[in-house]
Amino acid sequence: MTDATATLSADDAALATPFLATLVRIMRAEDAYGAWEKRSDAHLLKDFILTKEQRREIPIIGDPDPDVLWRVDKFYAAIGLTIEGRTGFVASPMMKIGHEGFGRVILTVGRLVVLSRSLRDVHRWGHEDLTKLAEAGTKAVDEACEMIAKYPGLADW
Amino acid sequence: MTDATATLSADDAALATPFLATLVRIMRAEDAYGAWEKRSDAHLLKDFILTKEQRREIPIIGDPDPDVLWRVDKFYAAIGLTIEGRTGFVASPMMKIGHEGFGRVILTVGRLVVLSRSLRDVHRWGHEDLTKLAEAGTKAVDEACEMIAKYPGLADW
Repeated sequence: MTDATATLSADDAALATPFLATLVRIMRAEDAYGAWEKRSDAHLLKDFILTKEQRREIPIIGDPDPDVLWRVDKFYAAIGLTIEGRTGFVASPMMKIGHEGFGRVILTVGRLVVLSRSLRDVHRWGHEDLTKLAEAGTKAVDEACEMIAKYPGLADW
Repeated sequence: MTDATATLSADDAALATPFLATLVRIMRAEDAYGAWEKRSDAHLLKDFILTKEQRREIPIIGDPDPDVLWRVDKFYAAIGLTIEGRTGFVASPMMKIGHEGFGRVILTVGRLVVLSRSLRDVHRWGHEDLTKLAEAGTKAVDEACEMIAKYPGLADW
């Protein structure tokens, strides 16, 4: 097996995770004019990927542009939807990010904060490859589902 | 006792509640240029008051202006600070209001959603008098403190 096919199948495995499948679904839902219709799933998610080299080229201090905030929003929306798919509970994200790119995202289910993340340097937000992106989302979903399993009474408020 | 003095003492009693005292403190902290220095506490809170007659004059459908959003924000910030004064736990508000004036505010402490309120018709947000304003805030604080007392482990995450 060559390196190229190995990478290809890593991407395919990542895209097959419930989290990335949901993220792709959300992105396609936003495509009201069909402009992305012919794009592959991997192409559709390309802006979520930020390699180490790309990150190094971005200044350490910077204001996040609307596009990156939009992607962070979609990332957490996909986490919420994947939680719903797994547990049946709707998880709603709330985000508070200052113009300097520092902030916080929480996902709540009923009276339970199932996920809480501090965000910093949002202008450099992204994941190294599809595998890492899938891992980050799936880890957050796992964490949230554990909270729901532990406190079902508060989730079902 | 005349009606005027009765109203005066009702306002004084309201202003003496921990909740309104906190709201006044927050408002004075915003007054960076001392423009409100000579205003009484009741005067400082006058825009939080919306009598039934005033409400009737506002169209049912309308977009909330930044001033009313700012007041809603201060109202929930004061609830958060009063909760902290009573329990020692920091309660942070998060607000999500669409431009049409519908939305949601939650206050979280650790992993616990201590308060959750749907908001609608935010462009007509306000309370009838200082007593009602104090009651609304104090009720929310009570509710939040009960949640913290019930689930101390989640509050102290």
